[in-house]
Amino acid sequence: MTVELDLEPVFAHIEAQRDTFIARLFEYLRMPSISAHGIGIGEVADFLLARLQALGMEASLMPTAGWPMVLGRHMERPGAPTVLFYGHYDVQPPDPVEAWVTPPFEPVIRAGRIYARGVGDNKGQHFAQLLAIESLLAVHRQLPCNVIVLLEGEEEVGSPHIGDFIRQHRTLLPADVVVTADGPVHESGRACILFGVRGIVSFELRARGANRDLHSGNWGGVAPNPLWTLVHLLATMKGPDGAITIDGFYDNVLPPTALERAALDALPVDIDRVKAELGLADFDVPRDRAFYDRLSLWPTLTINGIHGGYGGPGSKTVLPHEAVAKCDIRLVEAQSVEEIFAKVESHVRRHAPNVEVVRQGGMEPSKTPLESHFVDPLRRAIAAGQSEEPLLIPAMGGSLPDYVFTKILGVPAFVTPYANADEANHAPNENLEVDRFIKGIRTGAAVLAHLGAMARG
Amino acid sequence: MTVELDLEPVFAHIEAQRDTFIARLFEYLRMPSISAHGIGIGEVADFLLARLQALGMEASLMPTAGWPMVLGRHMERPGAPTVLFYGHYDVQPPDPVEAWVTPPFEPVIRAGRIYARGVGDNKGQHFAQLLAIESLLAVHRQLPCNVIVLLEGEEEVGSPHIGDFIRQHRTLLPADVVVTADGPVHESGRACILFGVRGIVSFELRARGANRDLHSGNWGGVAPNPLWTLVHLLATMKGPDGAITIDGFYDNVLPPTALERAALDALPVDIDRVKAELGLADFDVPRDRAFYDRLSLWPTLTINGIHGGYGGPGSKTVLPHEAVAKCDIRLVEAQSVEEIFAKVESHVRRHAPNVEVVRQGGMEPSKTPLESHFVDPLRRAIAAGQSEEPLLIPAMGGSLPDYVFTKILGVPAFVTPYANADEANHAPNENLEVDRFIKGIRTGAAVLAHLGAMARG
Repeated sequence: MTVELDLEPVFAHIEAQRDTFIARLFEYLRMPSISAHGIGIGEVADFLLARLQALGMEASLMPTAGWPMVLGRHMERPGAPTVLFYGHYDVQPPDPVEAWVTPPFEPVIRAGRIYARGVGDNKGQHFAQLLAIESLLAVHRQLPCNVIVLLEGEEEVGSPHIGDFIRQHRTLLPADVVVTADGPVHESGRACILFGVRGIVSFELRARGANRDLHSGNWGGVAPNPLWTLVHLLATMKGPDGAITIDGFYDNVLPPTALERAALDALPVDIDRVKAELGLADFDVPRDRAFYDRLSLWPTLTINGIHGGYGGPGSKTVLPHEAVAKCDIRLVEAQSVEEIFAKVESHVRRHAPNVEVVRQGGMEPSKTPLESHFVDPLRRAIAAGQSEEPLLIPAMGGSLPDYVFTKILGVPAFVTPYANADEANHAPNENLEVDRFIKGIRTGAAVLAHLGAMARG
Repeated sequence: MTVELDLEPVFAHIEAQRDTFIARLFEYLRMPSISAHGIGIGEVADFLLARLQALGMEASLMPTAGWPMVLGRHMERPGAPTVLFYGHYDVQPPDPVEAWVTPPFEPVIRAGRIYARGVGDNKGQHFAQLLAIESLLAVHRQLPCNVIVLLEGEEEVGSPHIGDFIRQHRTLLPADVVVTADGPVHESGRACILFGVRGIVSFELRARGANRDLHSGNWGGVAPNPLWTLVHLLATMKGPDGAITIDGFYDNVLPPTALERAALDALPVDIDRVKAELGLADFDVPRDRAFYDRLSLWPTLTINGIHGGYGGPGSKTVLPHEAVAKCDIRLVEAQSVEEIFAKVESHVRRHAPNVEVVRQGGMEPSKTPLESHFVDPLRRAIAAGQSEEPLLIPAMGGSLPDYVFTKILGVPAFVTPYANADEANHAPNENLEVDRFIKGIRTGAAVLAHLGAMARG
């Protein structure tokens, strides 16, 4: 009860500062920081460093083999828990720019939404955490717990260096729990807590035939066709029933716990609406799989692209000499990147030894138990900040580098998104509802208050 | 014996006119006639019409729904057989022009070869037939048989109108036998007679998933992937052992006759050289299939191209919404275009009913029996014209519209190529050895003489 009393003046302060906070977010949004193109990253890192210093944090830019980590620490509450807020300050490229109603780096408000590249993914969400810290300090002159802020500049290019960074600097990161505000809330619009992410491995399969393209009449039946090689290889990797048939692929897949099973069954989904929105008559096989089981419990093998031979208008009687399939596998607990790469390579060696496997990157899956004692305070914090009980989602379909917290730091990691479900991240006209931004600031403050209350309780 | 005596002065005339004949071929080669681009076809048709009229033929340009047929008839020997010489006056586009040592429509002789677009395919070869007629007339004032010359302007775009033309004008085409000089001689350099061609059907398989590309993390496992749809469909159409598994696909495939079997077994082939030239360690499955059996006896299902999803550098976590496979099937006797299209469509309906099959063109296979009584005179004619016994090839791997002769006119059709095996047709620096051009003129004259002698004999 003490905590809720403490929060009321903080919420009042946030409401009073509403326009100021929006203006300060706009300042941030006007600075491009496109990691894929190397544009503006350094300037934004400097901007954030100054923001963290203004919060009284022990702050620095920490070099990595890529763009720096922005690290801020506020460790003045010995004995209290330490909460790590993770976010990323890089954004997706704005292409296609011509599809934006207003320029991507000139934020505007239309119909209650802020439009700008990165406003949802992820600037508006982690900036809300910083404003939450600021608001708590403005009202109470102190924070209810220790806080570490870690902002990455390479999330949109696959977080290639955060693993090494965490391993090297773990003594600077004595977190008890990690909270990330990223991605959208549940598609129903409901607040949610995500406990896990799928991992990913990406690879190419490269098949070769003769030393040049051949005429299908003169050589059809004589020269091997790399497209047939890929078709037959891929057909050994996943069946028409949807089952992935790489040897041992499912060996380490964990079944859902009782709490996960119950949480998945409790998630609302409007199947007909989703199908209509995607223009689909049916979901992928197997047809009887529950919607959220597809995203949370099951790994996937997606062909991202196949290209080989003729692709122009009409027909061309060519027997192509090379072909490439690009694939990604989404991993679930407790599969691992190295395990799955090795199983793919072993499978290809056995079924199509002349096909080259080119590894292109990987990220481990991550899952935090629903039994964690941080769940109840987080639920109460979200209910306080957003005025509704959050849905519990065992794992999201996409990938985030949460494994660096759960598997390297060894602490629970939660994703508590603030953005609207139609934020259009990675797309033109990315946007964030103003009210959700403000609720995000409230939630950030409530998270620190409720997690801080744990030690006191 | 009379015949060989008759040919000696003709051969002498050809030798005496050697330089003149080459100069006149150059005149023809300087005229582009690119059917795919609609360039120069009318002018070349007019040129040929004048050439046929100069031979004293009843000649005309016969309209079709596309470019005209050039038809010449010399029917002054009632009771003698009628030989139809087929050829085509259109050529392949010269692209890539920059790969030519000298410009494609400026013929030159280098090291005993004439270089020009269309010199082998097919201008030099049917022009040799016309010069053979001219030489016979110059020496003997008459032809040993009736002769019909039929030159098409759309062979390089799939001969879309020749079937209708032959059906509509069969009374103008009372041929007993059709002889076509096209394609290269046997790859060993030996003269040959080809008795058949494979047919072809070309089609696209179009698969669709959602109404837009999706993120493989957010939707992988939910939305069907059209590339997987194509992989699984294609895998039902041909097995990894090379067997085509479309229902009923082989029902109408004729086994070789005893003469065909013997002819195939007699064909020379340097397997190691072919593999080295193609850069292959092994031929396509099944590995134990004899080389010429692959091209003459067996139909093929070639994937000409697959395109869908991401094809750029690195990886992109996309779940594509559409994908296309382009395929051709080479048919052998007695498969038919309509039969195979129907079987493909029925197969796709059963295995992947949402995949669209788009027909893109077809040509029937054709085969003339090795037992034909025209074979012996043709062998003697080739031996006289080219000073070597021809190899007998039951069917070539590629496709020509011979079916219009064997199946519409109902007469035997033979291909007697004059061009060198490395003529580079459909490629830059197309060429024809000067000696083979002259031997072609000799052979044309000998063919008419020996076939004419049949009626007298």
